[in-house]
Amino acid sequence: MKTINGGITTVSGISASGIACGIKANGNRDLALIFCDQPSTAAGVFTTNKVKSAPVLISSERIKKGKAQAIVANSGNANACTGERGIKDAQKMAEITAQELNIAPELVLVASTGRIGRPMPMDKVEKGIKMAVAELDTEGGHKAAMAIMTTDTFPKEVAVEFEIKGKKVHIGGMVKGAGMIEPNMATMLCFIATSVNIEQELLQQALKVSVDKSFNMISVDGDMSTNDTVIILANGKAGNEKIEKYDEDYEVFLESLSYVTTTLAKMIAKDGEGATKFIELHINGAKDESDARTAAHAIARSPLVKTAMFGETPNWGRIMSSLGASKVEMNPVSVDIWFNELKLVENGISTGFNEEDAKKIMKNPEFSITVDLKIGNAKATLWTCDLSYDYVKVNID
Amino acid sequence: MKTINGGITTVSGISASGIACGIKANGNRDLALIFCDQPSTAAGVFTTNKVKSAPVLISSERIKKGKAQAIVANSGNANACTGERGIKDAQKMAEITAQELNIAPELVLVASTGRIGRPMPMDKVEKGIKMAVAELDTEGGHKAAMAIMTTDTFPKEVAVEFEIKGKKVHIGGMVKGAGMIEPNMATMLCFIATSVNIEQELLQQALKVSVDKSFNMISVDGDMSTNDTVIILANGKAGNEKIEKYDEDYEVFLESLSYVTTTLAKMIAKDGEGATKFIELHINGAKDESDARTAAHAIARSPLVKTAMFGETPNWGRIMSSLGASKVEMNPVSVDIWFNELKLVENGISTGFNEEDAKKIMKNPEFSITVDLKIGNAKATLWTCDLSYDYVKVNID
Repeated sequence: MKTINGGITTVSGISASGIACGIKANGNRDLALIFCDQPSTAAGVFTTNKVKSAPVLISSERIKKGKAQAIVANSGNANACTGERGIKDAQKMAEITAQELNIAPELVLVASTGRIGRPMPMDKVEKGIKMAVAELDTEGGHKAAMAIMTTDTFPKEVAVEFEIKGKKVHIGGMVKGAGMIEPNMATMLCFIATSVNIEQELLQQALKVSVDKSFNMISVDGDMSTNDTVIILANGKAGNEKIEKYDEDYEVFLESLSYVTTTLAKMIAKDGEGATKFIELHINGAKDESDARTAAHAIARSPLVKTAMFGETPNWGRIMSSLGASKVEMNPVSVDIWFNELKLVENGISTGFNEEDAKKIMKNPEFSITVDLKIGNAKATLWTCDLSYDYVKVNID
Repeated sequence: MKTINGGITTVSGISASGIACGIKANGNRDLALIFCDQPSTAAGVFTTNKVKSAPVLISSERIKKGKAQAIVANSGNANACTGERGIKDAQKMAEITAQELNIAPELVLVASTGRIGRPMPMDKVEKGIKMAVAELDTEGGHKAAMAIMTTDTFPKEVAVEFEIKGKKVHIGGMVKGAGMIEPNMATMLCFIATSVNIEQELLQQALKVSVDKSFNMISVDGDMSTNDTVIILANGKAGNEKIEKYDEDYEVFLESLSYVTTTLAKMIAKDGEGATKFIELHINGAKDESDARTAAHAIARSPLVKTAMFGETPNWGRIMSSLGASKVEMNPVSVDIWFNELKLVENGISTGFNEEDAKKIMKNPEFSITVDLKIGNAKATLWTCDLSYDYVKVNID
């Protein structure tokens, strides 16, 4: 597998565009379109929030048929908590897109991100969709990635190339994230295309597994926004023998897909609102994987831990405290903690480490924290960021 | 019942002191002593964090005997994650105190708050305890309340007087709080004295019920720091007929005790680190009380909700989203939301309220948010604060 330049439109048969139609007051791009030149096998993972946006309600229903050909997505308005009108507006977005592309409306998926509770400005959206269709381009992935941004400071894309039994396969994707990441109520939208030839159920399973290890390890499992959406389209153009069971070909595809989602997830953590530090958090020695994940989230969720990271203070007591408050099986006197290679804590008490050494590590824009519970053999890795003044600033509205 | 000036030393037989012995680098008061002129009935509620400070381990064990006569507490060092040495240091604190007061060591309870993971400076502590004993005063409650402060900006005390069958009874207490309150890893210490004559088991039960409706409604249940401690001493000097069952006398005492803990809890929320807004959050119409409490905590825990409060932006979508992400039973299309008397949301969508009216309410230093789930009849009230730049500033170390 190798990474290649570009994003979703590196995949053969995929075109995209991203335009500005005035949904965002600042005039930035706010409407993205992704189009496949033929109906594709489709799979999706959607928010588990009980309050679901209208686009989530519609797209999660449509994707059950396993086929899609286009995705229309806007930023600047979440179309959530908008009642019956919101549902009609999301349906209308799909209809207009279908009409302009001359395809069946049920092959169009919809996604939105932005402020909750405000009606969609449908006149602007209609004009925008027409513009987006006119600008569809097999090199348009980057503009589409820009059009789904909200408080993101950079567009997030990745593409890879790998082989399945001698056939070249591509996967390309984009994501928008931001929010403090954890605890995270900010919307995450991710669109991925691939040329692999695969059974729908296996595509769905591969997506679920990949999301669990990536996007769900920057944000609390099940603790998602009203709009979170991950969609993958597989058009089969790679010409590989169709993947129909959990065989070696499936594993090769899964590995590459997981790389794509993990790379995009890390970009989200790096671009956390106001973030100045990117932290890779390893939990080792947990009773089971569920405990390992819970421990990682408990630590990353703590504002006291996050502000200590911003302040570059090696206050490991806050890590111990958030661990102890979590529901994971642990013994306070068996916990070890490292910052990079520096061991701060052994068996629950300070190693007498040099505070200046710890601070030096924390001055880096990226470092790792490893916590060994020494209870079992399960592990988890999570990516997070610090909590700075700018987080508050970004979120005042 | 009426509130009276003062705190813990308004209770007959109680003396207290608060001195500075150099545990805090800034020279502020850092050691408090509370002493009763006779052994008292004692009850306590301690942190459920799996990582418990040495004083919590010792005091929670000692209080099982139901008797205590003195509490020695320090700020500036949590004596948590300090291993065997920490246990010995906490025991030593009780021993020195007992010796100086000429009472049995097992009648002394210990509490600490401050940074985790550092050994107690026992030479300073020993000197401090001797000073504190020398300065014991029946009007010393205020100084003791000052000595347990950490990032608190004001000492927190309350006292009440009420009657049980014609006998005057007093309850006086102090608390230290701070932290962002929710999610809260900052230590809460609370010491209460009362002249009521009551059976130990009933005192314990009354304390538990009062804490549940007060301190546990400013912080996640079970999600406590390593050091959280609430202790009550009842010396029986009121001379009321001993409360030995759940009768009217018990209810009268419980009501007053709940008033004391709720008043102290609200003071903690008002003094949240960097807080500029004090918000009373009402959940109505929940399926059951547990759901009502969970919903309240889910909303109050959201940094997006808290920053919107600081920014005075009526972004009710963030309230809906945090509700939906919680585990409570709800139907998005049946939720109503008010700020004070202004209805922002009806049946899950905007009422079309005037945004300027909502902002005007949010400019007040105190206002209420009411969320009606319209699912059942259960209610809960929680007190919280906003998330400001200064929260980050306070917590950099």
